[in-house]
Amino acid sequence: DRPLLVIAGPCQLEGTDHALMIASQMAEACKAAGAQFVFKGSFDKANRTSMAGKRGLGIDEGLKVMQTVKDQIGCPVLTDIHTADQCATVAEVCDIMQIPAFLCRQTDLLLAAGETGAVINVKKGQFLAPWDMPNVVAKIESTGNTRIMLTERGASFGYNTLVADMRSLPTMAKTGYPVVMDATHSVQQPGGQGGSSGGQREFAPVLARAAVSLGIAAVFIETHEDPDSAPSDGPNMIPLDQMPALVKSLMAFDALAKADPLRV
Amino acid sequence: DRPLLVIAGPCQLEGTDHALMIASQMAEACKAAGAQFVFKGSFDKANRTSMAGKRGLGIDEGLKVMQTVKDQIGCPVLTDIHTADQCATVAEVCDIMQIPAFLCRQTDLLLAAGETGAVINVKKGQFLAPWDMPNVVAKIESTGNTRIMLTERGASFGYNTLVADMRSLPTMAKTGYPVVMDATHSVQQPGGQGGSSGGQREFAPVLARAAVSLGIAAVFIETHEDPDSAPSDGPNMIPLDQMPALVKSLMAFDALAKADPLRV
Amino acid sequence: DRPLLVIAGPCQLEGTDHALMIASQMAEACKAAGAQFVFKGSFDKANRTSMAGKRGLGIDEGLKVMQTVKDQIGCPVLTDIHTADQCATVAEVCDIMQIPAFLCRQTDLLLAAGETGAVINVKKGQFLAPWDMPNVVAKIESTGNTRIMLTERGASFGYNTLVADMRSLPTMAKTGYPVVMDATHSVQQPGGQGGSSGGQREFAPVLARAAVSLGIAAVFIETHEDPDSAPSDGPNMIPLDQMPALVKSLMAFDALAKADPLRV
Amino acid sequence: DRPLLVIAGPCQLEGTDHALMIASQMAEACKAAGAQFVFKGSFDKANRTSMAGKRGLGIDEGLKVMQTVKDQIGCPVLTDIHTADQCATVAEVCDIMQIPAFLCRQTDLLLAAGETGAVINVKKGQFLAPWDMPNVVAKIESTGNTRIMLTERGASFGYNTLVADMRSLPTMAKTGYPVVMDATHSVQQPGGQGGSSGGQREFAPVLARAAVSLGIAAVFIETHEDPDSAPSDGPNMIPLDQMPALVKSLMAFDALAKADPLRV
Repeated sequence: DRPLLVIAGPCQLEGTDHALMIASQMAEACKAAGAQFVFKGSFDKANRTSMAGKRGLGIDEGLKVMQTVKDQIGCPVLTDIHTADQCATVAEVCDIMQIPAFLCRQTDLLLAAGETGAVINVKKGQFLAPWDMPNVVAKIESTGNTRIMLTERGASFGYNTLVADMRSLPTMAKTGYPVVMDATHSVQQPGGQGGSSGGQREFAPVLARAAVSLGIAAVFIETHEDPDSAPSDGPNMIPLDQMPALVKSLMAFDALAKADPLRV
Repeated sequence: DRPLLVIAGPCQLEGTDHALMIASQMAEACKAAGAQFVFKGSFDKANRTSMAGKRGLGIDEGLKVMQTVKDQIGCPVLTDIHTADQCATVAEVCDIMQIPAFLCRQTDLLLAAGETGAVINVKKGQFLAPWDMPNVVAKIESTGNTRIMLTERGASFGYNTLVADMRSLPTMAKTGYPVVMDATHSVQQPGGQGGSSGGQREFAPVLARAAVSLGIAAVFIETHEDPDSAPSDGPNMIPLDQMPALVKSLMAFDALAKADPLRV
Repeated sequence: DRPLLVIAGPCQLEGTDHALMIASQMAEACKAAGAQFVFKGSFDKANRTSMAGKRGLGIDEGLKVMQTVKDQIGCPVLTDIHTADQCATVAEVCDIMQIPAFLCRQTDLLLAAGETGAVINVKKGQFLAPWDMPNVVAKIESTGNTRIMLTERGASFGYNTLVADMRSLPTMAKTGYPVVMDATHSVQQPGGQGGSSGGQREFAPVLARAAVSLGIAAVFIETHEDPDSAPSDGPNMIPLDQMPALVKSLMAFDALAKADPLRV
Repeated sequence: DRPLLVIAGPCQLEGTDHALMIASQMAEACKAAGAQFVFKGSFDKANRTSMAGKRGLGIDEGLKVMQTVKDQIGCPVLTDIHTADQCATVAEVCDIMQIPAFLCRQTDLLLAAGETGAVINVKKGQFLAPWDMPNVVAKIESTGNTRIMLTERGASFGYNTLVADMRSLPTMAKTGYPVVMDATHSVQQPGGQGGSSGGQREFAPVLARAAVSLGIAAVFIETHEDPDSAPSDGPNMIPLDQMPALVKSLMAFDALAKADPLRV
């Protein structure tokens, strides 16, 4: 098994300089720790809790930022897509296209994404059982694309609360595809602050470590130099200056886990 | 308060004759019982559990069926939409456009729907608290459209199971908009049959009656002359020949509820 | 079917005068509305959220109060029991003995209660599926006692929250035993106030009406002349002066429900 | 921090020879791996799903078995208690007395247990939030006993299902008391087999490893030489012959976790 892949970046893209700053620091931290690195950033927050939430740079400007990160940092880049007609355009720049959790059963989006041939990372819906993901996978596979990743980002647990079920990781791994733990969205409190979502940032390293210990392929972490002033998902992002230590710590658990694989 | 509105029809449109058959029987049953009636049918099932599930007639053929139902039966018609670019076309025919539960936070879809000026019925996501619906409402209101309906269709309750929380109905009613109980999708068992969803048809009249007793504006019920051979949602649809008695029964509870309104 | 039974009283017994005051007002309200009435009061709150919560009068003093209510008001009385060795003593006074939800699977308590021959009302645990109640029933039946009632009081729904699943009522009714809706505990927010439980008093009439419309045997409602100063469960109790109107309203739904029984 | 404590044994005591066989093998496995060991066995299963389930040896016979294990194996022993009047007797033999999850809010039981001065291990109820455990702790502390352990054993997640929330472990650790992961009961499916509970044995090592990686004090695992013929909890017990490898594996994660403590 290959060493842990760290998918990290801000929740939403804020501009070229900001993206380069985060990507370069994360690339360095991952290199130092022996982790693989993919830069993550969103060009559009298409399902904000309320109208008051900022949407982002938009697809044109966003993809330019992504291209610059690829060129200057030399890492693969990931973004999330929201409609079928965005897929071809986004795939020209992004190495990994991500299906948002709410949209994980939208057949046309899955097919359009699959048809680009890019790697497709599907976030499991908060409303979906892990053993129902093979149906999602089959939709993408029907396009001939088998470059698929599956992400746990928490399941609905009463109102305004998610719970990350660790059983979900080995269950999704039975598909044979790489499994990702989204440590920051799993500690989201959807709608928990009235007009926006709350979060429990302090538990993101807890879930990341627990998941990495199970031998998963990748961890997804949103980070920001000043989460409390980030335009979205601030309550659950990890401060950028804590990331080098976190990645280093996770790599020790990753090495141990991959030397001693669980059989489920 | 006006008498109960019954939104009913098959899960997916199967053809003109089939739609007319169901619409005419439902219109007659509603007229006999003193209920208002809206015909419901889907032209596309955009989020089937698996690829093996039938998608439906498509937008062109589906809207022709809807127009025929309007013309021949004389009732308003409702369908669900899945992308922003469908909205204007669908609004030419349909009186009510429905936002699917999984898509209830997709800002662009809500805005495009709102801008048509049609009535917009939003199904509350299985992952959303009822007190978070004002954020959804505000997105539609931002278009100047205040013809809005809000529907309860069950909340995630562990895996493959939903629960209908009766508190959701008066909570959503605080927005001032009409509230709908979707009695058949609330008894769905998402993904519960592997490649398709299961359902507990026998509990749909239970939830319908409980909700109607609270004085709601409308009930949403999918029905079919032979649910077990319907192309989708068969396990939770109510057989068509049971609908006249059910509507009649619900109207008695509706009358009592509206003569004795709850104050929450 | 007989008219609705209203089981009502304060959460905990506070003294003879207080119990008589509530019992007499409730008896009058039930008589006026055509409802059956059972007085409810607890002599010990054995599972308070915290040590700071008042326990109550104790078994000796509590049973004296209960006997006085029986003698002076002429109604049956119900209390909850917590250990097997309380059963025989309590059964000398109380017509109905109630098994608390947390204790609904404690075999020895169920057997000791059953052996008294009193009516046993079991509250379904917040952690139990309604279709698992036949196992509980069988424990009591093994004593030869078939005077059993089954109560819905909400199921765990994430942390600090309950949800009342209306499907639970007809599911438990399949046992053949009378089913009760506990409208006030179902709106409890367990531990929701740190050192005590919160509650949503405003939704108790909502759940009561929804449940009564399904044709259940009884409704359980805690009431107090001044809930906010009650020693326990104040946040979910209904003010006593609202009970006559509530009972009258419920009786209208009860009559309609029993004239038109649901078949599940 | 001290090395991981492994609390292990059969669900219910079956006899002296059986207990000694399991205790000796577990003691050896723990010694080889550098783990601490406590033998666990129940003398009474007081809350079986149904009457058909075996109750166990009873308190007298059970305590004799426990005393023999202590004498011959030289390890501390743990058992669960169900009523206040059992506490003093059990404390004469057992080093750790365990409060069952359903009973974790029964004040009298907590007080009687605390008063013995034994170590008290409280299982968090399936219906309780982890941040509500300080109220439980305070009840025990009121007796002057501060030898307390707190165990996660899964939270209700819809019907017949539990989910183990990893956030619960650091949350309970904020009390300052040692935290235990019950890996086998957390994969129970309560009532999931009609007259008994089901389980997902294959996920117990998953939850154990994830939890141990967070730096907890102890792991609780039920084991049996032939789980499928065990008198209770067979579906979630781990076969005894797999325990040495599991303990060894967990100790590697324990060492890493304790060298790199999480700060929550």
